[in-house]
Amino acid sequence: MHVLAAARSCFARSGFHGASMQQICAEAQMSPGALYRYFPSKEAIIEAIAEEERVDAAACGAALHGEGDIIDRITATGMDYLRQTLDPDTGGLMVEIWSESIRNTAIGRRFHEIEAEVRRAFHAELTRAQAAGEIDRSIDIAVALTVLFAVADGLVMRLQIEDEADIETIEPYLRRVIRGLLGAP
Amino acid sequence: MHVLAAARSCFARSGFHGASMQQICAEAQMSPGALYRYFPSKEAIIEAIAEEERVDAAACGAALHGEGDIIDRITATGMDYLRQTLDPDTGGLMVEIWSESIRNTAIGRRFHEIEAEVRRAFHAELTRAQAAGEIDRSIDIAVALTVLFAVADGLVMRLQIEDEADIETIEPYLRRVIRGLLGAP
Repeated sequence: MHVLAAARSCFARSGFHGASMQQICAEAQMSPGALYRYFPSKEAIIEAIAEEERVDAAACGAALHGEGDIIDRITATGMDYLRQTLDPDTGGLMVEIWSESIRNTAIGRRFHEIEAEVRRAFHAELTRAQAAGEIDRSIDIAVALTVLFAVADGLVMRLQIEDEADIETIEPYLRRVIRGLLGAP
Repeated sequence: MHVLAAARSCFARSGFHGASMQQICAEAQMSPGALYRYFPSKEAIIEAIAEEERVDAAACGAALHGEGDIIDRITATGMDYLRQTLDPDTGGLMVEIWSESIRNTAIGRRFHEIEAEVRRAFHAELTRAQAAGEIDRSIDIAVALTVLFAVADGLVMRLQIEDEADIETIEPYLRRVIRGLLGAP
């Protein structure tokens, strides 16, 4: 939705606190009256963005299931996540969300819940894969997931910071990392 | 230095733009007159913090050299970095710095230069190790470093976000990731 795209762009540039309803109106080329008809407050806009993220996260979790090698499936899910967050509005917004999560604000907690859902989907799939002997039986899945999510979020950030980095060169290296982390020794 | 520790804490909590000289005075328990005698502006404080970071980064680069297996040395350097950034003032400040780097502000560019120095040290060491056959000869070192720095920064962030994560459980998983990324197949 047009208003939410405008709001994401403002939040990515100025942060959730820095961006004003006025800026969002200007970005969306809407009058304040029209904007307030859809969203009575900045909080309502943020909640709508969180709901969009929840839908994307559920799609991301679904992509994890399926046929074939588990390392390949996690790599493909990771690459989808990186492609989805590559544009500066989305990638910049992610960093603002992490900043809120670290400060443990209401906004941070809201987005952290969404992440917890994705994490549960990964936990279930890795538990299944471990029981089936597809990944190393000796790893602690909770710790491995902390590292796996660190890799993904770290890459989202580096692709924003390093203009010269090319997302398509990353895939074989991401696969090496995931295989090293989860694969049988 | 006492003033800089107070300033780091304020910047971590409120961001570089959000934190005021007044807040820094209060945090440092100093009068504005005393603070301005040391630092004429917020920019001067940020520059002094950047200089502290440069010194730490150089120490980090030095730890990379030395005897023994290259995978072990990189793992140890990574763990040092994680321990150094574990307290909320430092870890929170890192996220603010990345946010500035993504927006390509003057502050972001200043800290990005420091990182570029560390990256050059890693590039030189990995080039030597690759020539010596200690790491996989087929990898592109520039891409591998983008992924390696993503892992490190992603972990800094996750250790801030996940209260239950224990840094000491991370080490064997970090080693697995680094071996997967750089090790011979």
